[in-house]
Amino acid sequence: MLTVKEALELVLKHAAPLPIVDCPLESALDRTLAEEIEADADQPPFDKALVDGYAVRLADMARLPRRLKVGETILAGQTPRRPLGEGEAAEITTGAPLPPGADVVIMHERTTGFGDEIEIEDQEVRPDMNRLQRGEVYKRGDRLLSAGPRLAPWRLGLLAAVGRASVRVVDRPKVAVVPTGDELVDFHQTPGPGQIRNSNATMLAGLAADHGAETWTSPILPDEPEALAQGLRAALEHDVALVIGGVSAGQKDLVPNMLRTLGAREVFHKIRIRPGKPLWFGLGPPREGRPPALIFGLPGNPLSGLVNFLVFVRPALDVLKGRPGETPGPIAARLGRRHHHRGFFRVHLPARILRDDPSSDGLPTIVPLDSRGSADLRAAALADGFLVLPEDEATLEAGAIVEFLPLS
Amino acid sequence: MLTVKEALELVLKHAAPLPIVDCPLESALDRTLAEEIEADADQPPFDKALVDGYAVRLADMARLPRRLKVGETILAGQTPRRPLGEGEAAEITTGAPLPPGADVVIMHERTTGFGDEIEIEDQEVRPDMNRLQRGEVYKRGDRLLSAGPRLAPWRLGLLAAVGRASVRVVDRPKVAVVPTGDELVDFHQTPGPGQIRNSNATMLAGLAADHGAETWTSPILPDEPEALAQGLRAALEHDVALVIGGVSAGQKDLVPNMLRTLGAREVFHKIRIRPGKPLWFGLGPPREGRPPALIFGLPGNPLSGLVNFLVFVRPALDVLKGRPGETPGPIAARLGRRHHHRGFFRVHLPARILRDDPSSDGLPTIVPLDSRGSADLRAAALADGFLVLPEDEATLEAGAIVEFLPLS
Repeated sequence: MLTVKEALELVLKHAAPLPIVDCPLESALDRTLAEEIEADADQPPFDKALVDGYAVRLADMARLPRRLKVGETILAGQTPRRPLGEGEAAEITTGAPLPPGADVVIMHERTTGFGDEIEIEDQEVRPDMNRLQRGEVYKRGDRLLSAGPRLAPWRLGLLAAVGRASVRVVDRPKVAVVPTGDELVDFHQTPGPGQIRNSNATMLAGLAADHGAETWTSPILPDEPEALAQGLRAALEHDVALVIGGVSAGQKDLVPNMLRTLGAREVFHKIRIRPGKPLWFGLGPPREGRPPALIFGLPGNPLSGLVNFLVFVRPALDVLKGRPGETPGPIAARLGRRHHHRGFFRVHLPARILRDDPSSDGLPTIVPLDSRGSADLRAAALADGFLVLPEDEATLEAGAIVEFLPLS
Repeated sequence: MLTVKEALELVLKHAAPLPIVDCPLESALDRTLAEEIEADADQPPFDKALVDGYAVRLADMARLPRRLKVGETILAGQTPRRPLGEGEAAEITTGAPLPPGADVVIMHERTTGFGDEIEIEDQEVRPDMNRLQRGEVYKRGDRLLSAGPRLAPWRLGLLAAVGRASVRVVDRPKVAVVPTGDELVDFHQTPGPGQIRNSNATMLAGLAADHGAETWTSPILPDEPEALAQGLRAALEHDVALVIGGVSAGQKDLVPNMLRTLGAREVFHKIRIRPGKPLWFGLGPPREGRPPALIFGLPGNPLSGLVNFLVFVRPALDVLKGRPGETPGPIAARLGRRHHHRGFFRVHLPARILRDDPSSDGLPTIVPLDSRGSADLRAAALADGFLVLPEDEATLEAGAIVEFLPLS
């Protein structure tokens, strides 16, 4: 059976960035930038006042008292009508262009008015004071951004500043969530004898959406070949198919067989992870213009699906989005109480961070929650994350440094 | 002039959680849960097989060889037709209900078939092995979640498991983004003389959306009373109004006056922060059924708006969403090179984390980026966050521990 590390390497080996597409700037938030961005014009495009006050000539500041005649008024959005004369000041507002000849702006608060004249306080006046020179932030043709980063709001702002109505981005992953199993009923319904509600689809669609995917949730597929084939065929048209249930070894575990019938190829099945051991991973048949679907056959117990998503699906989505390695993995934490780990499987236990932490080394102290195994979604709902115990057997004392996978 | 701390206290004093509303589960992702959630039924609702294999009686395991007659087959979604007899096994799949009398499930892999009989390996058989007992995860009426947390995907899954088609949540903040200024043109356009593109609205709407708000962006409002009154009136119907520009001291700074005319009340204007000093904060007129709008008059320079958003608007949104203090503030970092800070203002400098960090104490080492002040959105686009220098004058040596506000 593969270790988690080996399995993750196989998943990542088969994941590739999605095609690059044009996207209107209005819809580009949090997408991955896929082109270089250059400045279309100098920034600022003109010498600009940074405060409300008076545009003056630095040369006129040498003579005391600094009495100047007030000429025109230049408001933001206007253009100066004429150059500034010697011994003259132009009233100016923040963001307005300085008139030719002016090289300094004096704040209102540092001046006193005398009719159509002002006197400027006897302060030190530095060149360029309160003026931003044309092209000082960047010049036309400067490279502002390279491909790769997330289009965070402030990067979108920069794209707007250079007039990008549309931008090249990596396409969003399209994720199909496919619940299967005769025992499932929709969460709106009351389960009959032997039935349970479908809680996984809601959780997995939410996880995928929180990681930047566009999601489609299939109706619940019964354990019946016709219906299963139809639903899975639709799922394989997506970039990622999260097929829930039907991956254990029993007689009714139709999913892997049906996937093969539909042209999918198994890469691995069952790995040394708990919860989540029955994970099936494979690739869909070739598609026009896009890589084959990455297919994750997830066990039906909700914590198995959650852990498999965090450990395998999330890093794969990062690669598809063109941001490999973006999601941080486990962090270091201190174990709050002794724990024996039997080893062989990498085990994920719902755990809580102790709020009134006695230690002072900056590491959070965590304790595993009382939990009832892979069906216990309540433990996950109350957890801050998972204590991750690697494949080796170990008796961990209280205070030991351990791995912690935060949920947030 | 108020310090940042004093100003933030005033903002938070006037922020209150929004009304509680019903929300379909399908739309509840990342909202704030506003009710207690109880289990509507035992979980699991029946004694359930955790693996594919054979349901048997523990008592029958005492006799060797463990030869049992195979009776009925129980698939997930079905119900057993009859109790398990002595010396009998029922074939069972993961998730299916155990027949009465059965208390253990033996994995397929640990059995050998002989016609209509099986023999079970000579392994230790523990009570409850591979069986999840009815109500073992939680019992009908158990409290599963209290009000307060984010409806993360795994919590939504738990709500689906207990059949919640709709859930009480704190309403989403409705945020109006209102760019003002004669100098602004839409980012699709090429600016004429004296004009610049509106980059702030895109950035601020993105910031608000990333923090869980529903955003509305107004057309650019000119510096003209009629149009300004109309646009601001619409903005004040929102929970938060981010009004950009027109908050400095010049003759054309109409925004604070117009807000007062429309019934808004000023709480503060200008604070000891850079960039972002001209920040105006006030409250809109009373509204039916919702608290008055929180109005942030943001300076027009993009870094001022960004910093004011991170420092003031974001914590206010957390309160409105019912999750006060959720957003982490600055973290500790190590300064990569000497820096002199003149003090009085709390200053935010775009800064980068050094990737090949020589220090080994776990703190990131940061260096301020070369930047051209509050208009330099490129510096923010390249930054990992802001070096935060408090109000006191200080000469900080390389290696000093400083505050760092991450952008992510």
